[in-house]
Amino acid sequence: MSGASAPVTRWWGWGDPGKQPELPPEGLALLRELVGEAEPMQRVELEEVGVPDPAPLPASLVEAAGEHALLDGREHRIRRAAGQSYPDLVRLRTGRLGDAPDAVAVPATAEAVARALEVCAAEGIAVVPFGGGTSVVGGVDPERAGFEQLIALDLRRLRDVTVDERSLVARLGPGLRGPEAEDALAERGLTLGHFPQSFEYATIGGFAATRSAGQASSGYGRFDDMVTSVALATPVGELRTLDVPHTAAGPSLRELVVGSEGTLGVITEVGVRVRAAPHEHRYEAWMAPDFESGAEMVRALAQDDALPDVVRVSDEAETSASLGLAGVAGARRTALHAYLRLRRRTGGCMVITGWEGTSEAVARRRAVAARLIRAGGAVSLGHAPGEAWRRGRYEGPYLRETLLDLGYMVETLETAHTWSRLMEHREAVTRALGDTLRSGGGGCLVMCHLSHAYRDGASLYFTFIAPRRPEAEIEQWRAAKTAACEAIVSMGGTITHHHAVGRDHAPYMPAEVGDLGIATLAAMKERLDPAGIMNPGKLLPR
Amino acid sequence: MSGASAPVTRWWGWGDPGKQPELPPEGLALLRELVGEAEPMQRVELEEVGVPDPAPLPASLVEAAGEHALLDGREHRIRRAAGQSYPDLVRLRTGRLGDAPDAVAVPATAEAVARALEVCAAEGIAVVPFGGGTSVVGGVDPERAGFEQLIALDLRRLRDVTVDERSLVARLGPGLRGPEAEDALAERGLTLGHFPQSFEYATIGGFAATRSAGQASSGYGRFDDMVTSVALATPVGELRTLDVPHTAAGPSLRELVVGSEGTLGVITEVGVRVRAAPHEHRYEAWMAPDFESGAEMVRALAQDDALPDVVRVSDEAETSASLGLAGVAGARRTALHAYLRLRRRTGGCMVITGWEGTSEAVARRRAVAARLIRAGGAVSLGHAPGEAWRRGRYEGPYLRETLLDLGYMVETLETAHTWSRLMEHREAVTRALGDTLRSGGGGCLVMCHLSHAYRDGASLYFTFIAPRRPEAEIEQWRAAKTAACEAIVSMGGTITHHHAVGRDHAPYMPAEVGDLGIATLAAMKERLDPAGIMNPGKLLPR
Repeated sequence: MSGASAPVTRWWGWGDPGKQPELPPEGLALLRELVGEAEPMQRVELEEVGVPDPAPLPASLVEAAGEHALLDGREHRIRRAAGQSYPDLVRLRTGRLGDAPDAVAVPATAEAVARALEVCAAEGIAVVPFGGGTSVVGGVDPERAGFEQLIALDLRRLRDVTVDERSLVARLGPGLRGPEAEDALAERGLTLGHFPQSFEYATIGGFAATRSAGQASSGYGRFDDMVTSVALATPVGELRTLDVPHTAAGPSLRELVVGSEGTLGVITEVGVRVRAAPHEHRYEAWMAPDFESGAEMVRALAQDDALPDVVRVSDEAETSASLGLAGVAGARRTALHAYLRLRRRTGGCMVITGWEGTSEAVARRRAVAARLIRAGGAVSLGHAPGEAWRRGRYEGPYLRETLLDLGYMVETLETAHTWSRLMEHREAVTRALGDTLRSGGGGCLVMCHLSHAYRDGASLYFTFIAPRRPEAEIEQWRAAKTAACEAIVSMGGTITHHHAVGRDHAPYMPAEVGDLGIATLAAMKERLDPAGIMNPGKLLPR
Repeated sequence: MSGASAPVTRWWGWGDPGKQPELPPEGLALLRELVGEAEPMQRVELEEVGVPDPAPLPASLVEAAGEHALLDGREHRIRRAAGQSYPDLVRLRTGRLGDAPDAVAVPATAEAVARALEVCAAEGIAVVPFGGGTSVVGGVDPERAGFEQLIALDLRRLRDVTVDERSLVARLGPGLRGPEAEDALAERGLTLGHFPQSFEYATIGGFAATRSAGQASSGYGRFDDMVTSVALATPVGELRTLDVPHTAAGPSLRELVVGSEGTLGVITEVGVRVRAAPHEHRYEAWMAPDFESGAEMVRALAQDDALPDVVRVSDEAETSASLGLAGVAGARRTALHAYLRLRRRTGGCMVITGWEGTSEAVARRRAVAARLIRAGGAVSLGHAPGEAWRRGRYEGPYLRETLLDLGYMVETLETAHTWSRLMEHREAVTRALGDTLRSGGGGCLVMCHLSHAYRDGASLYFTFIAPRRPEAEIEQWRAAKTAACEAIVSMGGTITHHHAVGRDHAPYMPAEVGDLGIATLAAMKERLDPAGIMNPGKLLPR
């Protein structure tokens, strides 16, 4: 594949400009009841966004990037100036962008990427690798860290696909968006099976650089599980790992490149395991008595090797809010409640399960799991809400834009811990967020779900909503984010299960890996990026 | 656990001195027919082994290691002077040891390990971490690399076990041998499920440091799959990763420590996933028409998520030799041949399958797999040869000593590749070994089996036997080893799937990870081991 055929997207936020879900009136009423009133947020026009004048770039960079491969138009720059975190969206919507790349390089080949990095290292130009721009941790924000010039290196033209159908391994270009990769594989009857919420816009290179985990990670694996080989263009040359199923030859360089978030170089190729596309998708929902018994049920599934491909348990807050806000409104909600009353289950926690594969395998695996789910005290809600979840799996970021328009701060964060610490971990983070958000006197909604289950533990994903504090959006966000991160590290949980570190989590890296861990990563970076031009200010604390 | 209760082992080779299997007369006859006559090898007495006088060590080291924790007796030194590669065994048996550590430190705690490393770094004393001493790649050989003093750091006293039974995670001391770890887990109804051929003597720290893979890796995972956290004592401090099921916080330092082979520091604790001990073990054997169809069958199992916990396919040479030499002798062999004739299968390749777990899960999984196995053209040989394989799974190294006594060189090596390259990979390595071994005019036997299967490929394990060349054992071995390694890297296979790099594979690391990969690993080593004292001459090429 070649040429840049990126879809039309909003410059100021998530996704397709033609899609703007409305919150049903009863949803809005519920939100106001739970969280309070908010002052709607106006968005500036593109022309009103404040962008500094671009620093001039040397002719050698233009030459290295290739013909027509260095874009310096205002919109190009604005569109690579932010990701999708709440502070990023506030920067875009208010027009107080702060900074933007001086230009956007769109090299057509891995060789052009390598040449561009060489020039940037020689000239002292900072480089922010840019895939889908879907980072929610400030991973693509233009942090100059002392460099006068900074470019975004957009990988959208690197979209090659080659497939070894016998070994079920595909080599994918980093610029392929999720649907592009899946379409290319589907032509061969294959799938990657990586479906994070950002699927529609995020790229293969980004998945690898950030250790993305898809919603079906229990079945297909996290993205880092799928990666068999990588090629990394660094300012000092190429790092490439063998295309073999496994090696015991020393520390894993593949596992050092995966998760490197553009701070060591640019991932120019990713080898991934693929599999036969499933014949059947079976999604359904269940109601567990409470979050703890829902989590226990998932622990039993994980420890008995009976995990569905998708499994997630919403806590009480997420269950009732999602039924009320968007998931099941009006008549359908009433019918569901009637059904639950019939099953003598009036509160509870929603569980989504999904199986994919051959019909035979789905039936066999589901039978084993359903026994454990029922033994855990959950009652079936049938296929309809499961299929509704599946249809709506990429809608969250759109709904968030609607809520932002209405004046609400909406942000997510996630962590993971072992089963023995998971309940107290959730309580600590929920409490930290709630206490901080309510400290200004307003209301808030803090919701959590368990997903990405393992034999030894699971991830927890938090969504929090509060009326925005006008003109103090970033401070409000920072207080909540800091409280949550401090609660996470004080519990010994990981600062991120699948959103990566970026700029926002970098201060917590010493808690994650220790000072010597930081020093080790820094030594590796110094070797591969001696000028320090690669995505400065990300991953490692200053 | 504390105190050193290591089992009595041979100083000159593998295992329990009371166990010495005899080759049945028909086995010896077959060997002579296949490979030729050999001149029996005499073993020297312990007293005859040449050991250089030990270099004096500073009092500060004695103090750092702890009371009675620095052993300098002759036998202690000789016993930590070699692993279990053919050159190591020749060095021991001939008494031409070359070198030995100046002393053996046996610190009682992780803190004492850290103190000892600090002193060694300050004083310029090389340190070879020593677990079970079962390396077959020269990983524990005393390579001074310019250091006047060298100690072995034996971890046998670090054998703590703590288990989080809810999360099914155990923290294990590095000095625990395989059976010790399994015994401690069995008391709680748990198992690790890591059963490499070296199981009886190899240690937890060694498994982690070398990326060991057990025979049941398809079911329980390789050892590196099981590791959730590590603690590493380095000369500049401790590196420790969080005890969480997964993190997306940057490059994986856990995957840097795993596989580091003692070159970055000493692994002082390993967190591992454990699971319920199986109720049932079901092992059986099958005969595939030939190696290629056997491999295709395993590919189908892997790609259909139907792998047994153990699966291995012997090639024609290994099948007939193992039936003849040891596996099935005399009357049993005749009966087996009669049975195979009845099934119209006179040649072919032996396949071993094993399932472990609850009776229900074993039955369910076996039913799915057996269909694919039969569809692949294999016929059942029933349980008896499967169980015989399981009973004899740790006997290989003993049989090797018998063959060494008889005067035969016996060595193994292994690699891995994708399914699309696996057949030509096997042919290339088999040919390289055969051509080299026969170049002196003698006979040889080169056998191969496929094991450790993945969706994208599998490992290949080679055993080669030839009449030893008296007084030129090392040269003979080196020629064969070099030919095999060169064939492996020229095919783009990995130089090791689970034996690690050690000294013997270090020259091939640039082919494995490239010059920039080597430089990256070296940069991290320089940061953690600036004096270069940790296991010099291993992993990285000089």
